[in-house]
Amino acid sequence: MTALPGSLMAGDIAGQTAVLSGLIEDGANEIAAVRARIEAFDPRFVLIGARGTSDHAALYAKYLVEVRQLRPAGLVSLSTTTVYQATPDLTGCLYLAISQSGGSPDLLAATVAARAAGALTVAITNRPDSELARAAEFSLDIRAGTETSVAATKTYTAQLLTLYLLLDGRDASRLPAAIEATLANQHRIAEVADRYQFVERMVVVGRGYSYPSAREAALKLIETCYLTAAPFSGADLQHGPLAMVDDSVPVLAFTTPSRGAEALRPTLRRLEQLGTEITHIGGPGGLTVVAAGLVEELHPIVEIVPAQLLVLALARLRGLDPDRPRGLAKVTETW
Amino acid sequence: MTALPGSLMAGDIAGQTAVLSGLIEDGANEIAAVRARIEAFDPRFVLIGARGTSDHAALYAKYLVEVRQLRPAGLVSLSTTTVYQATPDLTGCLYLAISQSGGSPDLLAATVAARAAGALTVAITNRPDSELARAAEFSLDIRAGTETSVAATKTYTAQLLTLYLLLDGRDASRLPAAIEATLANQHRIAEVADRYQFVERMVVVGRGYSYPSAREAALKLIETCYLTAAPFSGADLQHGPLAMVDDSVPVLAFTTPSRGAEALRPTLRRLEQLGTEITHIGGPGGLTVVAAGLVEELHPIVEIVPAQLLVLALARLRGLDPDRPRGLAKVTETW
Repeated sequence: MTALPGSLMAGDIAGQTAVLSGLIEDGANEIAAVRARIEAFDPRFVLIGARGTSDHAALYAKYLVEVRQLRPAGLVSLSTTTVYQATPDLTGCLYLAISQSGGSPDLLAATVAARAAGALTVAITNRPDSELARAAEFSLDIRAGTETSVAATKTYTAQLLTLYLLLDGRDASRLPAAIEATLANQHRIAEVADRYQFVERMVVVGRGYSYPSAREAALKLIETCYLTAAPFSGADLQHGPLAMVDDSVPVLAFTTPSRGAEALRPTLRRLEQLGTEITHIGGPGGLTVVAAGLVEELHPIVEIVPAQLLVLALARLRGLDPDRPRGLAKVTETW
Repeated sequence: MTALPGSLMAGDIAGQTAVLSGLIEDGANEIAAVRARIEAFDPRFVLIGARGTSDHAALYAKYLVEVRQLRPAGLVSLSTTTVYQATPDLTGCLYLAISQSGGSPDLLAATVAARAAGALTVAITNRPDSELARAAEFSLDIRAGTETSVAATKTYTAQLLTLYLLLDGRDASRLPAAIEATLANQHRIAEVADRYQFVERMVVVGRGYSYPSAREAALKLIETCYLTAAPFSGADLQHGPLAMVDDSVPVLAFTTPSRGAEALRPTLRRLEQLGTEITHIGGPGGLTVVAAGLVEELHPIVEIVPAQLLVLALARLRGLDPDRPRGLAKVTETW
């Protein structure tokens, strides 16, 4: 008996409401304790290391650190440790290492090096027994449960929520209901997937907090639908790449009303003038994002859900099994 | 009378030897003075702000800061200033603002904010009379002369060399001869362009110092040939995007012998197993990069040259004028 292609991914996506409400309930104390430790430490800057999908969670964390904590932040180039053996002085630095599996050797090596260099290290993983979790001074469990699909979905939203609770700290109790309502109100997914059935190239845009959503949606489209999806922040798209957008390249835009979406408007106007086909996620006439009453910082956790559903539907339509993307493993070992 | 398409870009590319030797000669004192100021300031971390092609120079600078200066560094998300009005305390921070034109309003605003927040600000532009150059405490002129082509070529290599002299500081006197020899030894450009004539999607890879080269080559392919070129570091490609590489997606790889190229090998082996068509830049059987006797930190300034020539040839072959890419201006005003 063969299961429907993508049934594992479908299960992971549907399970996100329960995962996130479980995290709010069971993870709160652990996260609050580390949050207090960070506040006492008062880092002079924050470095964030990750790869793949977790790197989009890292980008989300960077915005939270800069906007909500008013601290400077940077994403780690792991190769400076693994390829060039650079050992900077990280006294007073907070170092966040984000990995679903906790099994990436390069991230482990960089985290060990950061701790030895004086940083306060915090691992954020779905495997509290992993080497990475044990290597860091503090470890946070994102409590997503076993993710059976290769394509990361619920571990991504659980990473984002863990980072929100750690770095922003405001109430998130309305989030699970918003996720549930968003899951329940996707009437246009099949229609949009249908339009994209034969597309080979796509551009995905978002701005501010929604830029990580654009990156994550593009990666999922690449991984599971094998199309070339190029993600851009709105401003970066205008600095050159706009040239490649023509009638054969549709655009997916994250436009849930927010300061980020407002700042994306000039880019969308340019695209409209070019006659580009745009599908909104969260904006008028597009895929539904239920985000009323949520602060903008929580939008990325909700708006990725319709993108996940679209990716699942599109992969199936193209005759692919998103649970078995070619050439990929659940744990990627790079150095 | 109509000039040959791309004649402005061709002139800018060919002029790089003279631009870079002029920069070494005439810019040395100005750069050394700012370098001494930075050393005295001894920054606790370094932030780098830029957009478009200059953002790849920023990524190059990030590697130099981390590997050669052993300081932590981060690339700036300009939207945290322009969209979210975040004003972190930047005491003790070095802030580098990189822009060919010095005319991007968002970078100007972020630099003004960084200076007000206590950072030591240094603008690196081709327009010492620009608002950005005047807004920063120090300003460095990359001395590239007027760039008449919309696609940035000589301003990119002049940015890289300025950053090398500022942040690395070792001798660069052999560089112009290496550029000249690289320009003179491109016998395979036409053949490679020919193979790519009808390609719509491409993957560009590099590792370490060559990752900015991959990003810059991809942007040029997008801007002037309108194909969708997706750039990845070797490790990131293995975390998912490898799935989209198939027979119809060729790979351009920066492989001039170095620690970065060595670290790229596992990725290239995977691609070879998949039967992917790979064109090396700097590696065996590929486009020529003359880098003998140069430290790895100087490779990006040389290896981008064959990529520029390939982009020019490919655009012409596709009937496009790289001097007039659609929908683009020399100065992009974003916020």
